[in-house]
Amino acid sequence: MEQFQLSDVLLKKIADLISVKNNTQLKKIVKDIHFADMAEIINELNENQGIYLIKLFDSEKTSEILTELNEDVREKILKALSVKEIADEIEELDSDDAADILGELSEERKEKVISKISDDNLADNLIELLSYQEDSAGGLMAKELVKANENWSVLKCLSEIKKQGENVTRVHSIYVVDDMDILIGRLSLKDLIISSSKKKIKDILIPKVDSVNVMESGEEIAKIMSKYDLEAIPVVDDKKHLLGRITIDDIVDFIKEEAEEDYLIAAGVQGDVEADDSILELTKARLPWLFLGLVGGLGSVFILEGFEEFMNDPTYKALFFFTPLIAAMAGNVGVQSSAIIVQGLANDIVKGSLLKRLIKELGLSLINGIILGLLTILFGLGINQPLELSLVISLSMLCVIIVAALIGTSIPIILDKKGIDPAIATGPFITTSNDIFGIFLFFYIAKIFLL
Amino acid sequence: MEQFQLSDVLLKKIADLISVKNNTQLKKIVKDIHFADMAEIINELNENQGIYLIKLFDSEKTSEILTELNEDVREKILKALSVKEIADEIEELDSDDAADILGELSEERKEKVISKISDDNLADNLIELLSYQEDSAGGLMAKELVKANENWSVLKCLSEIKKQGENVTRVHSIYVVDDMDILIGRLSLKDLIISSSKKKIKDILIPKVDSVNVMESGEEIAKIMSKYDLEAIPVVDDKKHLLGRITIDDIVDFIKEEAEEDYLIAAGVQGDVEADDSILELTKARLPWLFLGLVGGLGSVFILEGFEEFMNDPTYKALFFFTPLIAAMAGNVGVQSSAIIVQGLANDIVKGSLLKRLIKELGLSLINGIILGLLTILFGLGINQPLELSLVISLSMLCVIIVAALIGTSIPIILDKKGIDPAIATGPFITTSNDIFGIFLFFYIAKIFLL
Repeated sequence: MEQFQLSDVLLKKIADLISVKNNTQLKKIVKDIHFADMAEIINELNENQGIYLIKLFDSEKTSEILTELNEDVREKILKALSVKEIADEIEELDSDDAADILGELSEERKEKVISKISDDNLADNLIELLSYQEDSAGGLMAKELVKANENWSVLKCLSEIKKQGENVTRVHSIYVVDDMDILIGRLSLKDLIISSSKKKIKDILIPKVDSVNVMESGEEIAKIMSKYDLEAIPVVDDKKHLLGRITIDDIVDFIKEEAEEDYLIAAGVQGDVEADDSILELTKARLPWLFLGLVGGLGSVFILEGFEEFMNDPTYKALFFFTPLIAAMAGNVGVQSSAIIVQGLANDIVKGSLLKRLIKELGLSLINGIILGLLTILFGLGINQPLELSLVISLSMLCVIIVAALIGTSIPIILDKKGIDPAIATGPFITTSNDIFGIFLFFYIAKIFLL
Repeated sequence: MEQFQLSDVLLKKIADLISVKNNTQLKKIVKDIHFADMAEIINELNENQGIYLIKLFDSEKTSEILTELNEDVREKILKALSVKEIADEIEELDSDDAADILGELSEERKEKVISKISDDNLADNLIELLSYQEDSAGGLMAKELVKANENWSVLKCLSEIKKQGENVTRVHSIYVVDDMDILIGRLSLKDLIISSSKKKIKDILIPKVDSVNVMESGEEIAKIMSKYDLEAIPVVDDKKHLLGRITIDDIVDFIKEEAEEDYLIAAGVQGDVEADDSILELTKARLPWLFLGLVGGLGSVFILEGFEEFMNDPTYKALFFFTPLIAAMAGNVGVQSSAIIVQGLANDIVKGSLLKRLIKELGLSLINGIILGLLTILFGLGINQPLELSLVISLSMLCVIIVAALIGTSIPIILDKKGIDPAIATGPFITTSNDIFGIFLFFYIAKIFLL
C-alpha cells in the first residue's frame, strides 16, 4: 500500500471538473479515493469547490470525510449545509465522531440538528456525550459497543452479537454486565467461538476487566492503554455502570496531538496551530513568547549597563564580546536539562528525590562545563587574550552552566508537583530566564575577580 | 482503573523480602501485579534483586516482563540467564517481541538460543524476522496471524481459526490467501459469524485489503495506520505473499518514540536518552550540541570585536547592551518558524512552493517585528535613550527577525527535500546560526546608519 500522494495535477483536474459541473467525470475520479485522502483534497480546495464536492457523495462517505477535514475547513462546510443535511451525516457516524462534529456547532444549531435526528436512541446518546469534557473519557468514548448479560447462553450471545454488531465497526471485546448493567467481565469473540453453545456467559467470562472512570483525563487513558497494550477500554461511571468504550485509534490521535503540542511549546509556539493557519492565528501563537523574549532581552540591557565600567578597561571590555556565548550556553543547557526531565516525567521515570536529580545534574554540568571551559581557554590562547581574562571567562561560564542546569532541572519538577504541565518550562521561559540570570552571574563573577 | 503507582514503601518491602529470601510472601505480593508494572519495579531494583525476582515467576509472566523492561536492565538480566532459560522465555512470546529480545543478544548467544528453541517453525520465523531492518515493516511485524484459504468453507474456516487462534493473542482480521499464499482479501470475525456456514470464503471475502511491503519504513507505516485508522495491517513481499502482520500497539510505541526523539532533538539532546541514563550517556547526548553552541558563541566574539569602534562612542556603546536581546530574538524566531514547518512536514500539510511559504513568513515576521520594534522604541524613551539610537535598534531588530524567520523556514524544507530529518533543524543548529547571523546583521545595519 502506497500512501496517497496529493498532486497538483489531480487538484487542478478536480477544480476544472467542478467549474464545468462535470459530475459524471468527478464521481469517476473520486470513487476509489479513501475518505481520509478525500478530506486532504477538500482541505486544499476553496470553500465553494469543497462544498460542491462534498454534496456529490452519499451520506456515508460524506460523513467520514467530514470527520477527517481540518477544523477550519469543516466549520465552513458545516455552515453551508442545512440542519437536515448535518443530521443525516451524523446518523452515519459512530457516536464519538458525531458528538465531536456536533460540539463544533453553535448551541442553537446543535439543538436543531439533534431534533432532526430520527433515531431517538442516538439523539439521547449524543446529548449524553456532549455533556462530558472534551478530553475526558466521556468526551473520547463511543456509545457503540457489544455487551452481553451474564445470564445469557453462548448461543443467545452469538445471535445478539450479530444484531448489536451491525452498529459496531470493530468488535474488540464483548463486555459482560449483570442485570443492573454493571460491568463484571469481558469475553473475546474468539472465546465465544471456541466455547460450547450451551454454556452460560457467566461460566466463560473473564472477570478481570480493566475500565476507566468517565471523568478520567485523556492523557491518563493514553498512558494506561499504551502501557498495558489495550486496544479498547470500557468506560464506567462511579457505580461501575457500563457507559461506553474508547478504542486505541482515538488514543493514537490523542497521543500524536499531545506530542505535537509539547514539541511546539518547546519551540515557543503556543496552542494548537499549523503551518497552514492564517497569519493572524500564527501571530497569536508566536508573539506572546517573543514578547517574553523581548522583556528578558530588555532586562539584560539593564544588567549590562550595570557593568558598564568594564568598558573603560582596554582588556576587560572584551567581556562584552562574550555575552552572546554566555547567553547561548545558559539557554541551551537549561533547555536540555528541562527537556530530559519533562520527557522523564511524561514516562513516569523521574522518581526519587529532587536532591538526587540535582546532584546528578551537578555532576553532568561539571563535566560539560569543564570541557567547554578548557576549550574556551584554548581559544583565548589562540587570540592572544590575557590568560587571567580567559580563566575568569571559563570559570564564570562553568558557574553559569551549573546554575542553568539546576534551574532547568528544578522548574519542570516543581511545576509538575504543582499540577502544571511541565512542558511549558522547556520553551522560551527557561531560555529567557537563564539568559538574564546567566549574563548577570557571568559579569558578577568577573567583577569579583577582575575589579 | 487506576494506573499503578510504584511506591517507595512497596519497593522497600520487596527488597526486604528478597534479602531474607521469603519467596512465599514475595509471590503473594507480586501475584496481582501486571507485568508492565512488574517491569517498572524491576527497573528500580538493583541487578541481583531483579534477577532474583524474575526467576520467581513462571516463564509466561517472565517473558512478558522482559519485553517491558528498560533496555539496559534487560541486558543485565539476560546476561544472568542461561541460554536454555532465554529460549524458554522466547517460546512464550509473540514472534515480534521474541525477535526484539534476540536482537539484543550477541551473535554467538543469539545462535545458541535459537538452537535451543524446540519449536522448529518458531525458530525459522525468528531467523526470518531477524533478517529485516529493525525499523522496517519486517522488523516490526509478527508472524502470528490468522489466515484462510479462499477455497475453504465458512465452517472449515471457523474450525481452522479455533486452531490457529490459539497462538494469536488478538484476532483483528482474517487474511485470505489463494493457493500460492498470495494475499487476496480479508474477513472479520464478525463477517464469519454472520455468514452461513456452507458459503465459501471466496464468496464472502472483502477483496480490498491494505498491505505494506516488508521493506516499508516504520515511520511510513505509522502514518498510514493512523491516517486510515487501521488496527492491523498485513505485511507482504514484492510478489504479495503474506509474510506477517503489524498491529496498532506496536505502532503506538513507535509513534511515541518518534515524537520523543523530535522533542529531544528540538531541545538539543541527541539520540535516545532518558533521565535515568548514566552521566556518561547523558554527556554524550548533550555535549555535541553545547560544543556547537560554543563554536557559535566564540564566532560571535570575533563579530563583536569587529564592531569594537562603537565602544568608543559614549552613546553608541549601548548597542553592546542589546546583543543578548538580538541573539534571543534571532534564536526564538528561527526556532518557532522551523518547528511549525517541521510539524507541517510530518503531517504532510506543507505543500506548494517554498516561495509562497517565505512570503507568508515575511508577512508574519513584519507584523511581529514591527510590534516588538515599537515596544523597543517605547523602552528607549523610558530610559531616555536618544531616539535615533532606538530607531536604529528597532530597525535592525526587525531585519534580524525577518532574516531569522526566513532561515528557520527554509532550512527544514531544504533538509526534507534532501531526505534529511528536518527535525534536527529546530534545535541548537538554528539557534546558533541565527545568533551569529543576527548579531552580525544588527551591528552591520547600525554601522550603516550611525557611523
